[in-house]
Amino acid sequence: MGDPAGIGPEIIAKAWTNRALHSLSPFFAVGDPRAIEAVWDGPVARIGDPSAAAGAFADALPVLSVADGGTIRPGEPDTDGARCALDSLEMATGLARSGAAGALVTGPVSKVQLYGIGFTHPGQTEFVAERCGVSKENAVMMLAGPTLRVVPVTTHIPFAAVRDALSVELIVAKARATARGLTRNFGIEAPRLAFAGLNPHAGESGAMGREEIEIVEPAIAQLRAEGIDAVGPMAADTMFHARARAMYDAAICLYHDQALVPLKTLHFDEGVNMTLGLPIVRTSPDHGTAFGIAGQDLAEPGAMIAAIRLAAQAAERRALTEAVPAT
Amino acid sequence: MGDPAGIGPEIIAKAWTNRALHSLSPFFAVGDPRAIEAVWDGPVARIGDPSAAAGAFADALPVLSVADGGTIRPGEPDTDGARCALDSLEMATGLARSGAAGALVTGPVSKVQLYGIGFTHPGQTEFVAERCGVSKENAVMMLAGPTLRVVPVTTHIPFAAVRDALSVELIVAKARATARGLTRNFGIEAPRLAFAGLNPHAGESGAMGREEIEIVEPAIAQLRAEGIDAVGPMAADTMFHARARAMYDAAICLYHDQALVPLKTLHFDEGVNMTLGLPIVRTSPDHGTAFGIAGQDLAEPGAMIAAIRLAAQAAERRALTEAVPAT
Repeated sequence: MGDPAGIGPEIIAKAWTNRALHSLSPFFAVGDPRAIEAVWDGPVARIGDPSAAAGAFADALPVLSVADGGTIRPGEPDTDGARCALDSLEMATGLARSGAAGALVTGPVSKVQLYGIGFTHPGQTEFVAERCGVSKENAVMMLAGPTLRVVPVTTHIPFAAVRDALSVELIVAKARATARGLTRNFGIEAPRLAFAGLNPHAGESGAMGREEIEIVEPAIAQLRAEGIDAVGPMAADTMFHARARAMYDAAICLYHDQALVPLKTLHFDEGVNMTLGLPIVRTSPDHGTAFGIAGQDLAEPGAMIAAIRLAAQAAERRALTEAVPAT
Repeated sequence: MGDPAGIGPEIIAKAWTNRALHSLSPFFAVGDPRAIEAVWDGPVARIGDPSAAAGAFADALPVLSVADGGTIRPGEPDTDGARCALDSLEMATGLARSGAAGALVTGPVSKVQLYGIGFTHPGQTEFVAERCGVSKENAVMMLAGPTLRVVPVTTHIPFAAVRDALSVELIVAKARATARGLTRNFGIEAPRLAFAGLNPHAGESGAMGREEIEIVEPAIAQLRAEGIDAVGPMAADTMFHARARAMYDAAICLYHDQALVPLKTLHFDEGVNMTLGLPIVRTSPDHGTAFGIAGQDLAEPGAMIAAIRLAAQAAERRALTEAVPAT
């Protein structure tokens, strides 16, 4: 559900309202049901066990109540709400890991609020990775829209820390997980990866920075030697227009905004965050808590609907094509 | 004309061919006429003086021959070509300064080639600024497309040098020149400027970097105190979608790719580079030399045509609204 004071509860409810229109697979919310009831008049079915969700889904939005959000005030985040968001995340992750849920979709949280209660991960992605026993390097945040998929090699770190965080090994690890994730989740047999350079014009042969020569090119060479279709480093500013996007399945970007600016410029209302490299399927709508409009019936559910759809498609694909351990 | 081995000569010729369709004001090329003749069968009028251009324009592309490009080989840049590009730039800048030309439009050059002949400026913009007696801080590179204008506060410097190049003073100087340039060249009386943050999510109140708090916010406060409509710092990834773009006249970005990625993602074939803060009007098509397709009749002239149009419009506006010194 994400932060109960954000737009998470509202967009989950709206996704349920639009379940038939978008052929959504059954889903259930995890969190404080009162957060949904505070912003939505529709039917809520409180369930005690995930197995009850499918049966209830046709007539009501199933909610597994696992956390007390305190006093619910849409648009006014507080410590109780942050604890509720974290408890919900932990529970939902566990349900996906155990197989009780087919996939995990996470609602928007406030990092500032989470840091305030001692959350030490940069974001939900890293938390989920740790709970799944996957190292940060091998968990990959991919943002997907209708015409573009991007992967930031570094994510929620300060701009000034990006350069030193980059290495051949990190780029190779992220790209490997991306290639494998594109096959597992999207059914792309031989994924084509395009790599962005770090400097203006990808450094112009070293004239404006040498990271392309010293870090990105060796990573690409190593990936090619492993049989991965990798091209670049490309000038970041000329790799995201329509003709360029048609040449690759995912763009490997070196920092947060290099990936997120083109994605959100093109697909602001429909971007989905998918974590690759995990044993579970995990997606998330690619937007924040939007506290400023919470509780006003203004939130657009498009990205949440896209996140639920993509999660269901990926889970179905994996179930069909991969050996599933008996539960 | 830019580098004679690039697509500059071809797109100038194609702009002339389309002069009626786009209602282009008379223009003339400056450079080696053979570079145009090598890639184009249309009529070229060699002129010895800019004053002959307007009369010749209806029937031929006027070319002021001021430089010898050596052996012309489209797609194969060399030292002679780089010298020719630099001589052409210097001459054309002088003609615009003297009033012999109403505006300067620069063709694409290769920085690598220019550096090879001892060019010490980061790009043509800085060269033109110096020749106009304007300090680098007060010359502003603006990229303009049909739905977005962006200004990078730092331009052609390595990524790792960006943080230390930023200062309150630099941002204020660039923003002031931008506001004034929007009024002078575009007729916008009270320009609205939106400022990007440096860090992911604009630092999230300092949690992921403090440059927003220490550099961008003080700059905005100072500009507001001067009566300039300045908002931000905004998260870069959410300030370029259609609804966000409608809220401002120009986005002030902190580094090259933060500005150029959204601009070229949206307006790849029609972006114009305009230098604000100069005593002359200067524009340029927002793309490179494209040596790989030079001489193959594949180059799209859209950005060059847009650059010529915007230059003419700005020159006309300035002539109408500003006192022009007698020549």
